[in-house]
Amino acid sequence: MASEDSTINSLVERASEGDRRSVARLLTLVERGGVSAEIIAEATHPLAGKSHVIGITGAPGAGKSTLTASLARDLAESDHTPAVLAVDPSSPLTGGAILGDRVRMEEATEAGAFIRSMATRGHAGGLALAVPGMVRVFDAFGFNPVIIETVGVGQVEVDVASAADTVVVVVTSGWGDAVQANKAGLLEIADLFVVNKADRPGANDARRDLELMIDLSQVTGQAVRRPEIVMTTATEGKGLNELKEAVSEHHQFLIQEDQMSLRRSKRWKAEVRSRLEYLLSEFSKESIDNLEENQESSPSSVANDLAKNLLKKDELG
Amino acid sequence: MASEDSTINSLVERASEGDRRSVARLLTLVERGGVSAEIIAEATHPLAGKSHVIGITGAPGAGKSTLTASLARDLAESDHTPAVLAVDPSSPLTGGAILGDRVRMEEATEAGAFIRSMATRGHAGGLALAVPGMVRVFDAFGFNPVIIETVGVGQVEVDVASAADTVVVVVTSGWGDAVQANKAGLLEIADLFVVNKADRPGANDARRDLELMIDLSQVTGQAVRRPEIVMTTATEGKGLNELKEAVSEHHQFLIQEDQMSLRRSKRWKAEVRSRLEYLLSEFSKESIDNLEENQESSPSSVANDLAKNLLKKDELG
Repeated sequence: MASEDSTINSLVERASEGDRRSVARLLTLVERGGVSAEIIAEATHPLAGKSHVIGITGAPGAGKSTLTASLARDLAESDHTPAVLAVDPSSPLTGGAILGDRVRMEEATEAGAFIRSMATRGHAGGLALAVPGMVRVFDAFGFNPVIIETVGVGQVEVDVASAADTVVVVVTSGWGDAVQANKAGLLEIADLFVVNKADRPGANDARRDLELMIDLSQVTGQAVRRPEIVMTTATEGKGLNELKEAVSEHHQFLIQEDQMSLRRSKRWKAEVRSRLEYLLSEFSKESIDNLEENQESSPSSVANDLAKNLLKKDELG
Repeated sequence: MASEDSTINSLVERASEGDRRSVARLLTLVERGGVSAEIIAEATHPLAGKSHVIGITGAPGAGKSTLTASLARDLAESDHTPAVLAVDPSSPLTGGAILGDRVRMEEATEAGAFIRSMATRGHAGGLALAVPGMVRVFDAFGFNPVIIETVGVGQVEVDVASAADTVVVVVTSGWGDAVQANKAGLLEIADLFVVNKADRPGANDARRDLELMIDLSQVTGQAVRRPEIVMTTATEGKGLNELKEAVSEHHQFLIQEDQMSLRRSKRWKAEVRSRLEYLLSEFSKESIDNLEENQESSPSSVANDLAKNLLKKDELG
């Protein structure tokens, strides 16, 4: 533990001096979870809080990876130091098939971006724990913005993206794509829409679908901003400047309207909650493992009894 | 509460007599969660445990819905009473785009299948709670097999499918599709593979990739059965008989090797755990809501303190 502490301390020190390999090792330790991850969380927490966190999500095949790689490259080439956390295990960014994305990624990396992919499935606590910790590492060591790319399918995955300051939902021009995004719960989390593959037929239909759904969902009386819709053809770099501008405008809006602190506060609470649930579940694991199996009893009655045994009695309703 | 009880009792009674509208209402109540869901869990638990539960999962676009609809139709037409629970929010089974699937689904329904789609995102406890409860309703009222269709992306979604007795992982003939399935954690949960769209070029490559990955992953000394690989072209009904046979053989294997009870036991424990975690998280929600915000403190230290306050002291390490 003492030696673990000092290893992490020296990694943090070197990362602060700009050593990317130390950043990479810290990310690996955070992804792995456990005690090291906690020590790193403590060490990086006071250093973090400056970066703009962007979530990019949408259906598989919508072109998120291409868009993310292009955006990272553009940002890196215009004096930013972006970091990308690609959560999608089937993302081409994780070493996949699409040559164009690999080239964009390499160009982004050369220009100063830090690109990291993860596939936490099966790890203790999973994405809900690892992602905030990894974003904090990037944030602590000067990467800004931090882009989280997740597939817009899956409860945890959508939640992870929606915890960003600016949430970009990507749809394509396919018939009904906007409707599917709505069904997957993506509409309600979007700060910004991208209709990608805008050179294909149906792109304007997708845009109209989105406009309609936004109209229908607009709640009056709240300080919400109507999500802008940006048309892109990521493979050709079309619309990227508009996207960069829209993202930056949303960032400005958050700062001006004092919404930034609200998002941060929401994110802080969400992380406390994830960690608390993780602690409780680790704690309850033992009682489940030792559980005398009795399938005659319904799982909910057994769970009720276990909860009563674990929790302080005077806290129970 | 008393009237809730009696409503549910009469729904359970009518469902037992074969009334499908009562089954549908019970499913809705379970999906909604809360007290009603618990009462239904208690009522259906003693009636359930006979059905073979089949999970069908794979990447979006692999043809899971077509395969599921075809399989359900075939089973219904050959004297079974299958139920389908389509979890994928973008599944065509939920009212989507593909006419062929709609026709197959209608034919399956006419032949006696019960098809139900859900999109639980955002509901309390989510899929991990709702799916076992809904499967239990189907099981209790004589539907057999019960097929769960989920998209093979997302932690919760993959877990839900992997809790089945027989897990079918669908890949297509696309280059690298098998590799992607592996990365998404689907290889380790598969009891059976389907290479769908087997009429397309690359189908044999996909099969070879799978064989290789199975070879590499085979652990000796365990009572595991090498997953069979079935080639299908679901849109044309090709390979469906082979799939039905392979599913049935796996079912027989489970029964003969006494693996069925192991799976059930695993599922029972997993559900106890989901419910316990849900109870604990409901219980901790209040303490999070009342949390005095102090972003100076790291989320993990705050979560640690909260856990200590919630749990019995003598239980703490």
